[in-house]
Amino acid sequence: MIVDRTLRGFLEELASSAPTPGGGSAAALVGAVGAALLAMVGNLTAGKKGYEAVDRSMRDLVAESDRLRGELARLADEDVRVFGEVMAAYRMPRGDDAERAARRDAIQSALLAATEAPLELARVCGEVIELAATAAEEGNSNVVSDAGVGVVAAHAALRAAALNVYINAGSIQDREFADRAVAELERLLAVGAERTEAVFARVRERL
Amino acid sequence: MIVDRTLRGFLEELASSAPTPGGGSAAALVGAVGAALLAMVGNLTAGKKGYEAVDRSMRDLVAESDRLRGELARLADEDVRVFGEVMAAYRMPRGDDAERAARRDAIQSALLAATEAPLELARVCGEVIELAATAAEEGNSNVVSDAGVGVVAAHAALRAAALNVYINAGSIQDREFADRAVAELERLLAVGAERTEAVFARVRERL
Repeated sequence: MIVDRTLRGFLEELASSAPTPGGGSAAALVGAVGAALLAMVGNLTAGKKGYEAVDRSMRDLVAESDRLRGELARLADEDVRVFGEVMAAYRMPRGDDAERAARRDAIQSALLAATEAPLELARVCGEVIELAATAAEEGNSNVVSDAGVGVVAAHAALRAAALNVYINAGSIQDREFADRAVAELERLLAVGAERTEAVFARVRERL
Repeated sequence: MIVDRTLRGFLEELASSAPTPGGGSAAALVGAVGAALLAMVGNLTAGKKGYEAVDRSMRDLVAESDRLRGELARLADEDVRVFGEVMAAYRMPRGDDAERAARRDAIQSALLAATEAPLELARVCGEVIELAATAAEEGNSNVVSDAGVGVVAAHAALRAAALNVYINAGSIQDREFADRAVAELERLLAVGAERTEAVFARVRERL
């Protein structure tokens, strides 16, 4: 898995002219950084004096952000996989009508997966942003800034994922699928932007 | 260095109740992801047919984003170091007046460094955002989305760094220093937000 690489190695591969890992995997890992910071807030709040009333909520925050972090790590690899399938489909032979039809079908099928993967990433980032609201409201005031860092990281990952949805949805012939994907994405973007600003403002109040 | 750890190990330490690495290191690494993506755009544009006119500019983009990535990797460690100095100063003995004075001086000196480090991070993120404009305008249209991912990552890192500047500047007794730091930060935030939205819009146009 990508998360088993060193940060240095991952950054070097990202910077290189190799097509993957690219922006989709980078976005998933930025989202994972956000989720990890929310777990940190939970871990530094649960069991602490003065925070007894939110103890259960903070333990749930840790469990939920750990789960989302795992999902995001998986989606970093999924991006490489679906991008590879799109590339492989475009490289299929197109010598005669049958080959051209098979290639067209393979491209369309790969594009569906390559739209669904960043859409799923956007959904998970939306969940991280939602969790950040709890971290910002109930978290230990000594580490509330980490909830703020977490939310801006998750929001950046959501916006980044959106770019990949737009690119791939644009080439899909099944317009009903593509329009539904873009409509869901735009709801996620609108809700995500509003919640991120609310969380960031709350963090600044509590600093 | 932090960048020599695996992503999995780094994310686990971030999520844990250990005080460092925390939001400051996380922000620096999110910024480094942004810088790496700009280098990728440059590396996939320089030398490519149709992009001869921007060849030199793209080679400069790679060199400059590699340099900024190195700075950001260094600042991920610097955050741990300055946070450790603040913690160590607060733990100094305060048995008599001389000890209390020494502790107060050590805290103030540590807070200056702990304000300067995230301010420097914010400046470097501002430079990454500026470079992203070139990547979005001149980069290979096949990878222009990576310039968009790069700019939102750098902007998230800038906003995250801002939180640490606010926290530490708030406890500094040298108000002239603190006010100057906050004023510079607010310029960086204003310029960064405006440029990020312009770059993101330009990327969406070119998708």
